[in-house]
Amino acid sequence: MPLLVVGSVALDSVETPSQKRDDILGGSAVYFSYAASFFTPVRLVGVVGDDWPPRHTEMLRARNIDTAGLQVVAGAKTFRWRGKYFQNMNHRETLDVQLNVMHDCTPVLPESFRRCRFLFLANGCPSVQLKFLDQMPGADLVMADTMDLWINTQRDELLQLIRRLDGLVLNDSEAKLLTGEENLVLAGQRVREMGPRFVIIKKGEHGAMFFSKHETYVLPAYPTAQVVDPTGAGDSFAGGMMGYLAEQGNFEPKTLKEAMAYGILVASFTVEDFSLDRLQKITREDLRHRMNQYQQMLTF
Amino acid sequence: MPLLVVGSVALDSVETPSQKRDDILGGSAVYFSYAASFFTPVRLVGVVGDDWPPRHTEMLRARNIDTAGLQVVAGAKTFRWRGKYFQNMNHRETLDVQLNVMHDCTPVLPESFRRCRFLFLANGCPSVQLKFLDQMPGADLVMADTMDLWINTQRDELLQLIRRLDGLVLNDSEAKLLTGEENLVLAGQRVREMGPRFVIIKKGEHGAMFFSKHETYVLPAYPTAQVVDPTGAGDSFAGGMMGYLAEQGNFEPKTLKEAMAYGILVASFTVEDFSLDRLQKITREDLRHRMNQYQQMLTF
Repeated sequence: MPLLVVGSVALDSVETPSQKRDDILGGSAVYFSYAASFFTPVRLVGVVGDDWPPRHTEMLRARNIDTAGLQVVAGAKTFRWRGKYFQNMNHRETLDVQLNVMHDCTPVLPESFRRCRFLFLANGCPSVQLKFLDQMPGADLVMADTMDLWINTQRDELLQLIRRLDGLVLNDSEAKLLTGEENLVLAGQRVREMGPRFVIIKKGEHGAMFFSKHETYVLPAYPTAQVVDPTGAGDSFAGGMMGYLAEQGNFEPKTLKEAMAYGILVASFTVEDFSLDRLQKITREDLRHRMNQYQQMLTF
Repeated sequence: MPLLVVGSVALDSVETPSQKRDDILGGSAVYFSYAASFFTPVRLVGVVGDDWPPRHTEMLRARNIDTAGLQVVAGAKTFRWRGKYFQNMNHRETLDVQLNVMHDCTPVLPESFRRCRFLFLANGCPSVQLKFLDQMPGADLVMADTMDLWINTQRDELLQLIRRLDGLVLNDSEAKLLTGEENLVLAGQRVREMGPRFVIIKKGEHGAMFFSKHETYVLPAYPTAQVVDPTGAGDSFAGGMMGYLAEQGNFEPKTLKEAMAYGILVASFTVEDFSLDRLQKITREDLRHRMNQYQQMLTF
């Protein structure tokens, strides 16, 4: 079943303790789409400027990602993010953000995309996320991501959004900020009480936690020795998870847990190289193989 | 099969964001012993002063913990630790340490204990740990814990100890300090290359990682909403793990993984109250019940 994502499409410059890359393909909607495309057709909605290399669009199309919703705005520049990772790759510093085209242009949802039943609202301004949600009243499963900026500056709109979601994905520090609760189990439960049917707290190298009314669980990250660039891990996680849900066409508790595991595994590949470089070298079969190892790891 | 532990026996004063306790039962050997006693008879070796409340000894004895190696030194005072946990219970500050009796007196290994085949050297000065190890040449399984202090001040002795161990238990920051490696998978592998057959990296609320020549895996912590006092979690983990190994009488890969899971679960109970208060309220049946939930959580 196709899956729609609205989010950022970016050119990133990334510095790690050992390497540096400029103007590489990035953005939440890009990582999400590529991750989801292992499982299901994807429809991408976003905006770029006319500096956007067409080869990126071609690459995405070749993955069964429909780019009809990717608007190229003439005279504008693509969103750019520049960041630096420290020795401990869990900590990063944003060195520069140039919103560029994203400052003025909200992407438009193509008419043909509106009946998509699986929707992911990648991290973005909650009032814009709400506008997209309003345009898709028939969606069966709506998930969203957010960040500290919106918790601090648009709390009311964010809470309004959260109430209407099926699933919210956020990281551990955001869950603490949103609830004022330091214990992640309590924080997750509190966020869920704000309205969504389920909440996922991402813990980076420590995995992810799931909260629904009747279930609380945690799955560890897949232990990879090769962490080159963590950028996009969270969006890859969400893409892998929701891609699997869309493929399965249901969101039963059992499917949700399998989906979360697939999200974790796609993310474990993403971090093994810059941009989409690692994901572009693997197949669904590699994911299946790592899934077998992961399940074996958790069996005793 | 009986299990011998050498380590600290202490009176702790603990402050958390919501509560405060003075002079409560603590110490690595105490937490370890109690945790292990769910599975196997334990022999405890340590020193206390004459301010030591005899009721603690009686309580330990009632748990099938042989206290013949617990020496009460007249005219001396018991080791005291005072610490404070911050809002995020993963961070604590040591406010005061009074070595007292532990400053001058090294506990003596009773003759009757020397043929014990399972030995745990709780965190302590590596040269003293080595002396104990020398006294037990017949031990089948020797595990030890350490800390940043010894990595910084007695590195040579520590490396000498590590080479002779079957298993080393240390926390994530210690593994990074010991190896200079930020990636925990690489850090764990590096520590294992220093000699032990297996290495366990404790990650607090995020669980624990296991490294042997042929296996690398991570198990998450059991998600408990009730974290009252994390003191002793690491020693409880080691005690639960090694207690189970001693009970099973082997350390096959399968048994080691089960043991690690039991360690995680005993620790998850320890943190639910101060001192041994929570552990004293549970039975092996409660552990079995939580194990079922834990295994279910990790199955998909």
